[in-house]
Amino acid sequence: MRIPWMLVGVLLIGVACASLPNASTAKPTWSIALHGGAGVIPKNLSAAEIAGYHAALDAALAEGIRRAERGESALDVAEAVVRVLEDEPRFNAGKGAAFTADGTHELDACVMVGSGLRTGAVAGVKTVRHPVSLARLVMEKTRHVLLAADGAEAFADLMKVERVPNTWFDTELRRGYLEEWRAAQKTHASSAPVRGENAYGTVGCVVRDAKGELAAATSTGGLTGKRWGRIGDAPIAGAGTFADGRCAVSCSGTGEVFIRHGVAREVSNRMRHFGEDPATAARAVIAMLDPGDGGLIVVGADGTSAYAFNTEGLYRGFADSTGRRETAIWED
Amino acid sequence: MRIPWMLVGVLLIGVACASLPNASTAKPTWSIALHGGAGVIPKNLSAAEIAGYHAALDAALAEGIRRAERGESALDVAEAVVRVLEDEPRFNAGKGAAFTADGTHELDACVMVGSGLRTGAVAGVKTVRHPVSLARLVMEKTRHVLLAADGAEAFADLMKVERVPNTWFDTELRRGYLEEWRAAQKTHASSAPVRGENAYGTVGCVVRDAKGELAAATSTGGLTGKRWGRIGDAPIAGAGTFADGRCAVSCSGTGEVFIRHGVAREVSNRMRHFGEDPATAARAVIAMLDPGDGGLIVVGADGTSAYAFNTEGLYRGFADSTGRRETAIWED
Repeated sequence: MRIPWMLVGVLLIGVACASLPNASTAKPTWSIALHGGAGVIPKNLSAAEIAGYHAALDAALAEGIRRAERGESALDVAEAVVRVLEDEPRFNAGKGAAFTADGTHELDACVMVGSGLRTGAVAGVKTVRHPVSLARLVMEKTRHVLLAADGAEAFADLMKVERVPNTWFDTELRRGYLEEWRAAQKTHASSAPVRGENAYGTVGCVVRDAKGELAAATSTGGLTGKRWGRIGDAPIAGAGTFADGRCAVSCSGTGEVFIRHGVAREVSNRMRHFGEDPATAARAVIAMLDPGDGGLIVVGADGTSAYAFNTEGLYRGFADSTGRRETAIWED
Repeated sequence: MRIPWMLVGVLLIGVACASLPNASTAKPTWSIALHGGAGVIPKNLSAAEIAGYHAALDAALAEGIRRAERGESALDVAEAVVRVLEDEPRFNAGKGAAFTADGTHELDACVMVGSGLRTGAVAGVKTVRHPVSLARLVMEKTRHVLLAADGAEAFADLMKVERVPNTWFDTELRRGYLEEWRAAQKTHASSAPVRGENAYGTVGCVVRDAKGELAAATSTGGLTGKRWGRIGDAPIAGAGTFADGRCAVSCSGTGEVFIRHGVAREVSNRMRHFGEDPATAARAVIAMLDPGDGGLIVVGADGTSAYAFNTEGLYRGFADSTGRRETAIWED
């Protein structure tokens, strides 16, 4: 009598795994994954607040779906989705960016395309409404891959991208986090990091288009209370953002850790060296890090998408040509 | 009669390989490798010029040997060697740094230590005599890993490191390269990259100390004619500089390519995933790149050092506790 029950159990486990959003077995023609940041996301959010986050993620998905269905390229879709997320004040990128220690905003962004490992990024821009689009222009219009600070602003002048005053990025939510950070600095008399959503956050999107091209885009306001022109992982190809012929990855977390470990590229390395699928590689890479460090989203060349995080939550969404369209915050 | 001659041939080849500087079989207690940049190094240099380069490389080696023999840490030795190379006007770092398109200097540097993947870097500093030492202070005194531009200058103010006017970095050699670059811009009416030594260059040092710790340090003036706050691979952990428990790596070449491919970390990845030794991994990684892209030096956890480059030359030097002390420019 025991053996049949074991078989039933194995079958049930098999069904549960197949239905996991991060282990989809469908092979869509196009596929989109996006995130609005990993972090300590309080589970006592009101129903209205939770619904607001889901609606914001779904609105970004909708923009991606609309463009993917029109046959737009992976890069076009990823950039457009991140522009929506940059304008969404709930997330730490563009409008709603974290405050620096000085009470200003310094924004970082990166795009990368699988074929040719083409990439462009900006760090420490202060007046560019959509840093992700300036990052794309670095890739397309210069021989460089990473431009920073005043130099990146001068490049923005030439490119005639939309500009806003630095205070345009202000939100009461993020100002509150800055005040928390300042209070903690006084208490601890140190520059101890503040962990969790209050400290960081990022937005990103990874896309596999119908032609099989892969692209990743990431944008962030960085760490609350950052100083001295600090650059995190988001604009560093291989750290917070990566795409090659195998996968496209966008990360969110403690940027310094993601730079040290080269997290985004390591997902591809594991797929290449060990033959892992995107979900397995994503979990293995996040498992290298300390609890609370962050998370990532990935889409593979076959259109399967996945995520992994070791924070309390990761704002995320997934859609593809098979009709999948879902958003999530915590581990379900 | 044929077989004995074949055996003799195989033995001779074996001897030649064993004596190659990049395939040392000795296991020294401490080991140092350094470089003064990869590039198109004209073979019609005068004997005096060639001797000058060898003397400059050997002077930096001497500083490293002196400190290693005193039992200083890998990081102390690597930093001290790079400080000597920064002060050497022949090489593109510190005094002798490349000029930007605007005729100024913006310096990048990075240090990384194997244990804990600790790292610190600065990009776009303008008045810091020894960027490598400021990079170390980022690692040791902040929670960040990469500081850029004016923010990095403000951090330098706090750290009270030695400052110099930006023109202090001027040399006639590099000004000549800027003029060449400007003339080429006019001719081609484009921002086509200038390849070779005239365009780039870097200095770096990797060390395995007697306790087995590994450290890497890299410093550069970047690309001649760079614009818009361009950041290259040198200050990006994993791209131009890397150290972990397996090896320490410092690169020189077309920075954008080294960022895209994550060159420095890829040496460690190949050692980890494929069990390659440092020399094999170094050659395999450089073989991924296009001819002329650059080169690297590496020291492994067992103290064996190696190099690889696909440019005409790589200014380099090696020393270790077994008495090895040699410098080289081209492939011998």
